[in-house]
Amino acid sequence: MTDLTELMYAVDTFYFLICGVLVMWMAAGFSMLEAGLVRSKNTAEILTKNITLFAVACTMYLVVGYYIMYSSSEGGFLPSLGFLIGGENSVDAVLSGDDAPYYSARSDFFFQVVFVATAMSIVSGAVAERMKLWAFLAFAVVMTGVIYPISGYWTWGGGWLSELGYSDYAGSGIVHLAGASAALAGVLILGPRKGKYGKDGSIYAIPGANLPLATLGTFILWMGWFGFNGGSELKLSDAASANNVAQVLVNTNAAAAGGVIAALILAKLWFRKADLTMALNGALAGLVAITADPLSPSAFGATLIGAVGGLIVVASIVALDKLKIDDPVGAISVHGVVGIWGVLVVPLSNGDASFGAQIIGILGIFIWVFAASLAVWLILKAIMGIRVSEEEEYEGVDLAECGLEAYPEFRVANVNGGSIGRGSSGHVAQGRSQPHTP
Amino acid sequence: MTDLTELMYAVDTFYFLICGVLVMWMAAGFSMLEAGLVRSKNTAEILTKNITLFAVACTMYLVVGYYIMYSSSEGGFLPSLGFLIGGENSVDAVLSGDDAPYYSARSDFFFQVVFVATAMSIVSGAVAERMKLWAFLAFAVVMTGVIYPISGYWTWGGGWLSELGYSDYAGSGIVHLAGASAALAGVLILGPRKGKYGKDGSIYAIPGANLPLATLGTFILWMGWFGFNGGSELKLSDAASANNVAQVLVNTNAAAAGGVIAALILAKLWFRKADLTMALNGALAGLVAITADPLSPSAFGATLIGAVGGLIVVASIVALDKLKIDDPVGAISVHGVVGIWGVLVVPLSNGDASFGAQIIGILGIFIWVFAASLAVWLILKAIMGIRVSEEEEYEGVDLAECGLEAYPEFRVANVNGGSIGRGSSGHVAQGRSQPHTP
Amino acid sequence: MTDLTELMYAVDTFYFLICGVLVMWMAAGFSMLEAGLVRSKNTAEILTKNITLFAVACTMYLVVGYYIMYSSSEGGFLPSLGFLIGGENSVDAVLSGDDAPYYSARSDFFFQVVFVATAMSIVSGAVAERMKLWAFLAFAVVMTGVIYPISGYWTWGGGWLSELGYSDYAGSGIVHLAGASAALAGVLILGPRKGKYGKDGSIYAIPGANLPLATLGTFILWMGWFGFNGGSELKLSDAASANNVAQVLVNTNAAAAGGVIAALILAKLWFRKADLTMALNGALAGLVAITADPLSPSAFGATLIGAVGGLIVVASIVALDKLKIDDPVGAISVHGVVGIWGVLVVPLSNGDASFGAQIIGILGIFIWVFAASLAVWLILKAIMGIRVSEEEEYEGVDLAECGLEAYPEFRVANVNGGSIGRGSSGHVAQGRSQPHTP
Repeated sequence: MTDLTELMYAVDTFYFLICGVLVMWMAAGFSMLEAGLVRSKNTAEILTKNITLFAVACTMYLVVGYYIMYSSSEGGFLPSLGFLIGGENSVDAVLSGDDAPYYSARSDFFFQVVFVATAMSIVSGAVAERMKLWAFLAFAVVMTGVIYPISGYWTWGGGWLSELGYSDYAGSGIVHLAGASAALAGVLILGPRKGKYGKDGSIYAIPGANLPLATLGTFILWMGWFGFNGGSELKLSDAASANNVAQVLVNTNAAAAGGVIAALILAKLWFRKADLTMALNGALAGLVAITADPLSPSAFGATLIGAVGGLIVVASIVALDKLKIDDPVGAISVHGVVGIWGVLVVPLSNGDASFGAQIIGILGIFIWVFAASLAVWLILKAIMGIRVSEEEEYEGVDLAECGLEAYPEFRVANVNGGSIGRGSSGHVAQGRSQPHTP
Repeated sequence: MTDLTELMYAVDTFYFLICGVLVMWMAAGFSMLEAGLVRSKNTAEILTKNITLFAVACTMYLVVGYYIMYSSSEGGFLPSLGFLIGGENSVDAVLSGDDAPYYSARSDFFFQVVFVATAMSIVSGAVAERMKLWAFLAFAVVMTGVIYPISGYWTWGGGWLSELGYSDYAGSGIVHLAGASAALAGVLILGPRKGKYGKDGSIYAIPGANLPLATLGTFILWMGWFGFNGGSELKLSDAASANNVAQVLVNTNAAAAGGVIAALILAKLWFRKADLTMALNGALAGLVAITADPLSPSAFGATLIGAVGGLIVVASIVALDKLKIDDPVGAISVHGVVGIWGVLVVPLSNGDASFGAQIIGILGIFIWVFAASLAVWLILKAIMGIRVSEEEEYEGVDLAECGLEAYPEFRVANVNGGSIGRGSSGHVAQGRSQPHTP
Repeated sequence: MTDLTELMYAVDTFYFLICGVLVMWMAAGFSMLEAGLVRSKNTAEILTKNITLFAVACTMYLVVGYYIMYSSSEGGFLPSLGFLIGGENSVDAVLSGDDAPYYSARSDFFFQVVFVATAMSIVSGAVAERMKLWAFLAFAVVMTGVIYPISGYWTWGGGWLSELGYSDYAGSGIVHLAGASAALAGVLILGPRKGKYGKDGSIYAIPGANLPLATLGTFILWMGWFGFNGGSELKLSDAASANNVAQVLVNTNAAAAGGVIAALILAKLWFRKADLTMALNGALAGLVAITADPLSPSAFGATLIGAVGGLIVVASIVALDKLKIDDPVGAISVHGVVGIWGVLVVPLSNGDASFGAQIIGILGIFIWVFAASLAVWLILKAIMGIRVSEEEEYEGVDLAECGLEAYPEFRVANVNGGSIGRGSSGHVAQGRSQPHTP
């Protein structure tokens, strides 16, 4: 390599690494978002799940996932299992950097590994407040080591979806819909939280305990998404690539902004209140929506794509609640329903994409991840159980699972008036629940 | 372009984008700072304002603001309104990248758009706890679409202030004083919070509900400021520019450090207590003070400039309170009063700047933004009202505006001893207020 | 310089600056971690300590520390004191950039200055909840201006440890063990918190008030560590350096992941609960462990090194508690004990390192920093006292030192059932303490 080529290699590597750092930061975003949207008695456990799933994702993807995703044959459906026997194409070889002429293979791994964690983070929010910690972590092992890498291979590893022309720039489908599909399977087997749906069909809102945390989480995700989408151009070191990366960041930001505005206005019109949680979900919806193609639309177009995402997410959250699919943080709506919107809208601005391939991609990813996840959840349910006991759910999973409380000093309010101790806080949120406005 | 020129173009684009990501992150900083410094009953609303104003700023600047700021004639006072009719110089053309020989025009837009949001974020803190959400957002539309872009054009768009020699590297005046001027106009029309000033002239402290959040917000702003000032060099790819960017970061950090130390010591001497909120405001004051010229001073000089900013902000917060200008987070002092200090001190280290031009710049920006904002606030007051009802203010604007609470489970303390429900939390902070120490 | 050389210079400078920004962000991480792990009545004070120690570190390192660390003679033990008389080698000359052929000297200073603050941040957590604010800040002045720079000079400034072959890539020993040694000296003189250890030898857990904050702090530190370790390669602009930086980030992340998993599993087996605070300490332990050499191990090796760190930290926290060394946040275990592990494991993967030199390095750093710190703590104790009064400790240091409360509106729980005012919250945590499980 000449000095100039080396410098280009270094710059592209650095660009990958910085984008990877931003995506890693999204793990903190999911943690804060979910910790803010659950009740205080379940907060320490959701934090434990989040930091541990990130650790599990990084380790499993290193041990098997990356190999499955990027060492399998072109155009295929089933991955190579060569990692089981090692050999020349083992993960060590992949990480040796010899095969990457344009940037360090290690930087590519770093960027990819934090993506897996994102997909898994989507699950933790949807199953919050009632799933067993260790069952969840066992699922994380399979999801990040096998399920995600296989469908990831289909597109980004050169598998059949890639040959088919499925177009998904940074993963509205591959990452977000995949995470949401796994979450949906879990939620269906797990069932809703106690006290969420009345026997008479009424729906009770269970407000999150700490909205500043949830807002912080949203801002972190917004920031991290610049790495998520911006790094997915995979190259920066020439003028055309640099222009593309810049366009991606402009569009990513514009879509999030559109999502906030549309969701807040719809919430105001529909519920008569400027519901902060809907604004937050609107931002995330805008981000998910633009992720399938943050490059082709104009900035105005990106704003509109995000705004439609913001409308969809509000409607979807209400609809899922009516279907008694209990998703405490709205993850299935944000990442799944809006992820589908993001994939479907690509052909409108990107001439290389077709609706047919996009639909096949959605179906392929959803069916695989949903079915495989369903199987894993059912096996886990049979072996160890996936739901905490009713008593643990009332008491809060923090004490049962983690042996500590997230906010041990702060007194919890009871709408019935009395000042109560922590141990009975489980009854509180239920007692103070109000029927849902819409 | 040669490969080397392309790489320089790519590196400068990347540098712009990373700095833009850091400035975007400041939106989270303002959110956390303001959410920590208001009472819990008004926290969800201030969060809603903050995320939505960011979205509005990004959208309005895209639709009209950027065009006004950068497509108008050289040396002028009034902006071009060509965006109304579109044509060759429309925003799309600006974003096409054809006219940017050194870096992607899209990256420049990305960097600029997050600046606008910063200016607007300053306003939300000052009018907190009593302004109507939708009146605030309506103001944000005009501020970010028109008011800021016009005075921004005067300097950075090549208008009359730029021809005059007004020197303001990253915007102590153009961004921070502008935001504070709009805030001051709003505060004067809005009036102070109920219970802030007694009829006998006494001043009641209304403590913020969550100081860890406020501290986090300050650290976020400190970090984001490296992008704010660091990106304002506009170029990185040669040795001289790189040295300049490095000097800017060293000085920005040094000034913030000086501000913390000076403000904390002054607070200790004056109030006998190491007031954390003053240390936080000291950090921000140091950052605002150095923003007008973070390049020319030595690192020692920057420490001193920041330290004087830290002294000024403590004195200013006390003084504004005596004038019954109620600014819950001290934004007018931090960004306005210290912003003026920052602009005025430039000629001491920068030979190209003159006190005359600096003073004219301050007056020009203040008069324009204050007068235009005053007009908009008055119009909004006449059309829709800008202040919530007295009852809503007592109950907290969260329930009235957003229909939810920031911390629904945590019991709120009442100094009178009884344990009270949330609905009456409005009376709490007032009941427990203490006369101000100084 | 040619254009290409200038661009390489600019890229390396930018790389340094971005890594420096990430390390600065660690100051926020320590703040949130410590604020989350202390009781609410001591939260505002720990925040004040954290932001002020950062400011003090930046200022003292600028005034004297950087000069001591990098202007002293090769191979020596005692630093140059030339900064006292100024002259050619003064800090201004160091910052002039003339002597840095490969990157801006200013960017090197920016990167180094945030390291000092990291070392000092370690101390604040260990002495939390009972040390006087101003005594702590006085110690910070000496630690960041003199103690750290001297042992820093021994290795990174070309002193005797560097000549000896002591190998410590990013400072498991130089930064983390140094900070922990100063903390240990302080804790020994200070004694444990009231109510931590019973007269009958029982140990009472004093739970942290806000675990989401502590988790956020851990994620911030994890993110910032990419700059801490990643920047310590000191060069990026050729292919080999870029590969190294990428490997460092992969390994840093892998080690943190290994630490989380190992610590959580050990806590589950030992205490029967998935203790979130142990998972957090496991992450930090993994990061500290890999810091002495994040380049040589494979990613699998890094995972193992981090995992062992995670096991060590859990055992160390329990052991220090049995020794009645009261460290509220586990800083001595995380940074000191695991720091030693990190330094000792280097020769296993790095052929240039020897166990002999590593042990001498550990002893040298520990003895110097511990002894010097002990002397300073004792002098401070004699002059001004270092511990707050017993009454202030019960009431909480926030009111005594800062004159405000971190969460003024939130009621504090009392295990005895009654609803109590804030003023007596000091008794609460003691009353609700439970004997330690192990």
